[in-house]
Amino acid sequence: MNLITLTTDFGYKDPFVGMMKGVIYKINDSATIVDISHGIESQNILEGAFIISKSYEYFPENTVHVVVVDPGVGSTRRPVLVSSFGHFFVGPDNGVFSMIIENDRCARVFEVTEQKYFLKSVSATFHGRDIFAPIAAFLSKGFSTGSFGSAIDDYTRIKIPAIERKQACVRGAVIYIDGFGNIITNIPRVVVDELIQMGISPSNINIEICGQKINGVRKSYADTKEGEPAVIINSFNLVEVFAYLGNAAKILKAHKGDLVEVKF
Amino acid sequence: MNLITLTTDFGYKDPFVGMMKGVIYKINDSATIVDISHGIESQNILEGAFIISKSYEYFPENTVHVVVVDPGVGSTRRPVLVSSFGHFFVGPDNGVFSMIIENDRCARVFEVTEQKYFLKSVSATFHGRDIFAPIAAFLSKGFSTGSFGSAIDDYTRIKIPAIERKQACVRGAVIYIDGFGNIITNIPRVVVDELIQMGISPSNINIEICGQKINGVRKSYADTKEGEPAVIINSFNLVEVFAYLGNAAKILKAHKGDLVEVKF
Amino acid sequence: MNLITLTTDFGYKDPFVGMMKGVIYKINDSATIVDISHGIESQNILEGAFIISKSYEYFPENTVHVVVVDPGVGSTRRPVLVSSFGHFFVGPDNGVFSMIIENDRCARVFEVTEQKYFLKSVSATFHGRDIFAPIAAFLSKGFSTGSFGSAIDDYTRIKIPAIERKQACVRGAVIYIDGFGNIITNIPRVVVDELIQMGISPSNINIEICGQKINGVRKSYADTKEGEPAVIINSFNLVEVFAYLGNAAKILKAHKGDLVEVKF
Repeated sequence: MNLITLTTDFGYKDPFVGMMKGVIYKINDSATIVDISHGIESQNILEGAFIISKSYEYFPENTVHVVVVDPGVGSTRRPVLVSSFGHFFVGPDNGVFSMIIENDRCARVFEVTEQKYFLKSVSATFHGRDIFAPIAAFLSKGFSTGSFGSAIDDYTRIKIPAIERKQACVRGAVIYIDGFGNIITNIPRVVVDELIQMGISPSNINIEICGQKINGVRKSYADTKEGEPAVIINSFNLVEVFAYLGNAAKILKAHKGDLVEVKF
Repeated sequence: MNLITLTTDFGYKDPFVGMMKGVIYKINDSATIVDISHGIESQNILEGAFIISKSYEYFPENTVHVVVVDPGVGSTRRPVLVSSFGHFFVGPDNGVFSMIIENDRCARVFEVTEQKYFLKSVSATFHGRDIFAPIAAFLSKGFSTGSFGSAIDDYTRIKIPAIERKQACVRGAVIYIDGFGNIITNIPRVVVDELIQMGISPSNINIEICGQKINGVRKSYADTKEGEPAVIINSFNLVEVFAYLGNAAKILKAHKGDLVEVKF
Repeated sequence: MNLITLTTDFGYKDPFVGMMKGVIYKINDSATIVDISHGIESQNILEGAFIISKSYEYFPENTVHVVVVDPGVGSTRRPVLVSSFGHFFVGPDNGVFSMIIENDRCARVFEVTEQKYFLKSVSATFHGRDIFAPIAAFLSKGFSTGSFGSAIDDYTRIKIPAIERKQACVRGAVIYIDGFGNIITNIPRVVVDELIQMGISPSNINIEICGQKINGVRKSYADTKEGEPAVIINSFNLVEVFAYLGNAAKILKAHKGDLVEVKF
């Protein structure tokens, strides 16, 4: 169906995203374009990597996902195209697709070198418009991945914050804070599920974050007192600290990268 | 034409709205999706109710309007589907459709119970993606309202701020403040129209708000001095206090819920 | 392909943009609508003029561009339609299309007078919805420009900040600051290109702004030290002051209108 998604750190003030859409429609007038987010923290490659890895699977197969978090634009960093899990990804070779590639042994990465698919004049500051948008548009028209360049395996990987398992503790970190102030950790649902399978009650699982202990895992946001920090398995299938009708990140003064421990 | 609108309090930073669109396109690849607003104040059901009630009629009949302002997500609150004035509405049963239903004796409300239309895995925190988006997508494909569950009449209503008519005064409240700082009241155009029909000149109608008296009703924003609070009938057909080339809400320190009186 | 773009100062909180889209789809259900920006500074006609003039060419010919930065809404200011470079532009006659018209001797401007194309009820405060959106929708369906009114040549022009050439100096101004804090001037690429053709090395071209001297023109954002103001030719083909991985406007306390000098 010619679906293309856009994920950038461009914000909503400037005309940059609109320009990219114009470029796409000039090449493929039957494309459908969806904004995933343009609110990625400025130049934060890890945040872009997290958001696209958690979002792409909700789109149909063959969707082309463009991600532009690109501090190295115009330098020697390469443009890449990734084919993984039946989806396509286009963006800079700076590790922004690392969280997708690490989960897919069959992922293929191509360096994009065929300049005939770029805009005629390529600026030094906006490859989203001049390179990634046209590549995505041609891909969405059915051009094969090999049309744009050759497969590579020396693509850039970024360090993805991993969880550590200790005896009665799993240690992770805050990976994202959403617009409601929900604190999203990198600790997956499976950590909590395993504890429950071992016979531990959800109400006996504790989370430590920002020097505060939070008791129990809730079944819904409303399953607690207003404004009190509590824990839930969220829609990313990750452990999340929230405050019902409040802003957990403000209450706990939490920041990305903060340590989180699940104890039992 | 398979039109679906989205109104939420998700903001523009997170990928939540994009995910909902992916889910919709997976089910109905010929859907057209329009964002009405994702800037509803966090968890403010009344504001969501106001915005959708004032917006839907500008869309073609048979449009499906999804509204997700949903503090009770994951709890026992029901998902509902409303059929009213030739439009469809999908969202939580928390009163967010009250301003539509109260104006339509023929409105029908259905509890959505048919889980086969939900995503296979329903999270505790994001029914917008897992329930409301797929229901809207199937509705937009022409599935009948009855496919999703049974009609109910014990749906949740919220208290809608009403106006009070006294002798030489109509008393209302600030119901919304827009991005320009225009102060929008719940006092309908008809109140002013009636006064004019009674022979009262627009320049003799006074508005009291935040301890300040404002004289006269203007014909356009430019029909007053720069930065001076003034009154107009706005595009919602409501009495509005504005400041030409200024921000009335900041000037008057106005807030939602503040008392407003029309005097003559 | 029935493409319509929207550029406004409405922001992202209110339902105004969504309403305009509903109106368009009611008239042309095969329209494709793209948001260029709704983050134009409130009531800043010059900024709207700059953004549309730099964006439209990335869209296919025959695209209809609606621009609503409209402090005079509801007053005597006229609605206009511009035909230029194979594109159409719809909006208020307040100069917002000046930067397009000044570059196109063949541009034609029409006053929009045919009220049968407006919404039945035209509000005093929202011509974007009631006049410009329906006009754009009918245009996108192929209605001729002459259907909506007659050609005029007394349309409103705004003063566009020009550059001044002195002996060893070109003097311009800050015209826009983007979401990354990049400081965009009105000095075109050609000024720098001419210097280079005259044999001056890019590293010997200096820019003065906010009382600070910046040496040299860079080839990419990464071609400098982190957080240090530097100069580049940007994707608008304009001289831009940036700070790699930083916010140049904050560092230099730069504002729109500030003086910028290119020296050599």
